[in-house]
Amino acid sequence: MKTDGLSINLATVRQQFDLKTGVEACLRHGITAISPWRDHIQTTGVAEAARIIRSNGLKVTGYCRGGLFAASDAAGRQAAIDDNRRMIDEAAAIGADCIVMIGGGLPKGSRDIKAARQMFADGMAAILPHARASTVPLAIEPLHPMTAADRGCISLLSEALDLCDALGDGVGVAVDAYHLWWDPYLERDIARAGSRIIAHHICDWLVPTKDLVLDRGMMGDGVIDLPGIRRMVEGAGFHGHQEVEIFSAENWWKRPGDEVLKTCVERYNTVC
Amino acid sequence: MKTDGLSINLATVRQQFDLKTGVEACLRHGITAISPWRDHIQTTGVAEAARIIRSNGLKVTGYCRGGLFAASDAAGRQAAIDDNRRMIDEAAAIGADCIVMIGGGLPKGSRDIKAARQMFADGMAAILPHARASTVPLAIEPLHPMTAADRGCISLLSEALDLCDALGDGVGVAVDAYHLWWDPYLERDIARAGSRIIAHHICDWLVPTKDLVLDRGMMGDGVIDLPGIRRMVEGAGFHGHQEVEIFSAENWWKRPGDEVLKTCVERYNTVC
Repeated sequence: MKTDGLSINLATVRQQFDLKTGVEACLRHGITAISPWRDHIQTTGVAEAARIIRSNGLKVTGYCRGGLFAASDAAGRQAAIDDNRRMIDEAAAIGADCIVMIGGGLPKGSRDIKAARQMFADGMAAILPHARASTVPLAIEPLHPMTAADRGCISLLSEALDLCDALGDGVGVAVDAYHLWWDPYLERDIARAGSRIIAHHICDWLVPTKDLVLDRGMMGDGVIDLPGIRRMVEGAGFHGHQEVEIFSAENWWKRPGDEVLKTCVERYNTVC
Repeated sequence: MKTDGLSINLATVRQQFDLKTGVEACLRHGITAISPWRDHIQTTGVAEAARIIRSNGLKVTGYCRGGLFAASDAAGRQAAIDDNRRMIDEAAAIGADCIVMIGGGLPKGSRDIKAARQMFADGMAAILPHARASTVPLAIEPLHPMTAADRGCISLLSEALDLCDALGDGVGVAVDAYHLWWDPYLERDIARAGSRIIAHHICDWLVPTKDLVLDRGMMGDGVIDLPGIRRMVEGAGFHGHQEVEIFSAENWWKRPGDEVLKTCVERYNTVC
C-alpha cells in the first residue's frame, strides 16, 4: 500500500514508542515522514534525535508544539518567548519543515480572550526574526473552539490568516481537519490561505466524542469528509504530506503501536 | 435582589421540576420569566400549560427547541417540518416570544455537513410562512462547534445571520454566550445582528469541561466575560431578558432546585 505523502505525528503512538522506537516502527510500515513532539526530542537529546532522523533519511513535516505565549505577567510571557526561541533552534537541528504554533489558553484567572490573543500575536512577532534567520517557518494551527479556554485561543482559520497578514513572511497555517471540519467558511478560507498552508493534519471526529482532548478518531471512523478537505487544500496549492495526529486515551493509545501504524496506512489508502 | 430581566430556562432545573412545580419554584424566588422545553409543555398539555403561564402572568422568553430538519430521506425531512409547524402552534398558545431553532446534526451515515445545513435552511423556509402567520419569531441559535456533528450544524453567528438575510422577516438569532464566547468575530457579528437578536442566553464555560453537552457552568464559575457580551448585545439594541440555561448532569441537576434558582438570582446580581 501507498505510504508516499503519509506522515505520522508521533503523538499518535505516544504511549507506545519514544523517538527511536517510533522511527523504527514507522520504517517497518514504510512510513518515512514523521512529526515529533518536543518531549520526544528533549528526552532523546537534540543531537541524537537529529542523527536518528538524518541517518534514516526521514522527512520531518512538523515539530510540535510552540506558541502558548499567554501568561499572567511579563516574566511569564518573556519565558515563553525565550522557550519558543530555543524551540526554533531545535527545529532547525532536526530539519523540521515547520513548528506548529498553538494559541494557548487564558492566563489563570483571566476572562479576557482578546488579551490572550494579543499575547499570542505579540509573542509571534517577538520570535519571528529568529525564525526567519533560522529559516524555520511557523505554522499557526487554529484549534477547535472547545479548547479555546485552556489550550488554543486561536480558533478560526480566518483569524489565523488575519494574523499571518499582519506578521508577514515566515508564518503560515496548519490546516487540521479535526479542528476545522465544522467551519462553514472552510472552503473560502482554505482558498484564501493558498501558499500560507504549510501543514495538513488528519484524523476523524467521532460521534459521540467522549473527551474534549483525548478522544480523536482514526480516519474513516467518524464524520469528517477528509477527501473533500484534501481537495480544498490541494486546490489552494498545498501538495505536502497528510500528517496523522490522533490523541486517543481509551482506544488507539492502548493498542499495540504496530497495529495503530498499520491501520493508519490502510485508512490513508482507503478513506483519505 | 433584582430579578427584573432574569429568565430561567427550565432545562436548568430539568431533573428537579416539571412545568407546574418549576413555575412555582421560580415565583418563590421572584422570577417571572421562563423558557420551557417541549416535553414540559407536552407532558402538562398545551391548554393547561398556557393556563399556568397566563394565570401567573409569566413572560415566556423562548420555547425550546425546534429545527433539527436534517434527515436521511424526504419522509424524515417532511416529518420534521410537520413537527416544527405543530411547535409553532404550541408556541403561540403559550405566548412564547420565540422558538429556539437549532441546526441538528448530520443524518446517520452522512459526512456532508454542507448538505445538513442546506436541509436546515430548506426546513426554515418551509415553516416560515406559518410562523409569520402565527406571529411566532424563529430564533436561530448557533451552537458550539463541538456539537456540529450530532446536534447543531449551525455554528457561527455570522452563518446564522447570513441565513436570516436569505430568509427575510420573522427570523432572528439567539445569542448564547456559552456557544459563542470564543468567537474572534463576536463583537463584529453581534453588532451586525442588531434587531435580529431576539434571545440572549447565559451560563459559563468551565475549565476543565468534562462533557460536550452536560457540563455547563453557573455564571461566575467559568471563563466567559458575561458582562462584556451583555454590553455587546445591548449595544446592538437588545434589552430583553438574560435567560439562564445550564445543563449540568453532575452538579446543578443533582442539587435541590431551590438552591439552583437562588444561586441563579445571586449570580445574576453579582457577575452578569
